Amino acid sequence: MGVDRELWLRNKEVMYKRLLNDLHIGYLDEDIEEVLLEIFKRRDSYTVSSCSGRIVMVDCVLPWIRRNSTVVFKKHKPISREEFLDLLSKPILYNLWVVITSPIIHVVTADLKEARRILVIGREAGFKHSGIISIRRDGIILELRSGVGLTQIVKAGSKILVDISNVDELVSMYNNVLTSGKERLEKLKELLRKYSEEEH
Amino acid sequence: MGVDRELWLRNKEVMYKRLLNDLHIGYLDEDIEEVLLEIFKRRDSYTVSSCSGRIVMVDCVLPWIRRNSTVVFKKHKPISREEFLDLLSKPILYNLWVVITSPIIHVVTADLKEARRILVIGREAGFKHSGIISIRRDGIILELRSGVGLTQIVKAGSKILVDISNVDELVSMYNNVLTSGKERLEKLKELLRKYSEEEH
Repeated sequence: MGVDRELWLRNKEVMYKRLLNDLHIGYLDEDIEEVLLEIFKRRDSYTVSSCSGRIVMVDCVLPWIRRNSTVVFKKHKPISREEFLDLLSKPILYNLWVVITSPIIHVVTADLKEARRILVIGREAGFKHSGIISIRRDGIILELRSGVGLTQIVKAGSKILVDISNVDELVSMYNNVLTSGKERLEKLKELLRKYSEEEH
Repeated sequence: MGVDRELWLRNKEVMYKRLLNDLHIGYLDEDIEEVLLEIFKRRDSYTVSSCSGRIVMVDCVLPWIRRNSTVVFKKHKPISREEFLDLLSKPILYNLWVVITSPIIHVVTADLKEARRILVIGREAGFKHSGIISIRRDGIILELRSGVGLTQIVKAGSKILVDISNVDELVSMYNNVLTSGKERLEKLKELLRKYSEEEH
């Protein structure tokens, strides 16, 4: 049940090099890079994968069923009225869904004590749906995730289910949801800095 | 860090009496009662709170901000076309959101080994967003939760954002999402029974 600290540290070093490389080539989303660096600075934590939050449009029956599902739009920044109307006008196979997710960060800690610490900080920053998703020899894996998000059907077959005459309100709300998720990243960064100063 | 087994067992007994009482007065949602009983049957697990999945309509700015938020409709069964149209026609203060959540179960285990076991079973049943949310002296607390759900804005102020002429497609999709969540409860019950037989 215990974590193999040597193995954990080797993996942290590999992931740190990868992070620096991603930063260097500009692959990393700027909204999230500072948070990831704060987590790496902690002696007993590192991150493996993350998403800074995004707007996705999917042609599918139901968005959690991967089979026959096609992503027709994906953006980590606000969507424009034109982009949305354009996508809405194109033919689809099943249903068209707008799915907005808030930031998700996977953290690997070297022990349970640190895992609990990260959980508490995460929850304080508004990542209320966070939890330990796996306990393994190479580390304790946590998922930081908030309840901020939207999953909305906008078209069924050829029938548009939203009222086009009020498209401005709709698009503005989509962008509002995206921003609202990203604000929690900022809060998480601040809290990580605050607690890191207190711990040292 | 260790769980106090005596304390844990006393709490399990209290929660078991409460469950039997809820069953007796018919307070418990029938969709979920068999799953809860299967979890209680396990030596090292019990449940504290649960929801079998529901459709809620909320008058609020954003559904994850509780302040100034009013639940105007709540039902654990499918919504009818008439119920939906009636709610859509009534005046609101902010925005009207339809929020459909899939089943959520909180499990308390006596040790980490059992927590990992429940996580694996939960994930196999489709509760993909499950995790350990707290490690305490009175037990390890897990949340079983799936990604199935919908969060949709249908009205902003007095402007209706959905196309009323296609209301049947919309309501049918809402009920589809609700049912799709509840199916995972059935799957969870089957898996708990299967693994319980294998373990004994």
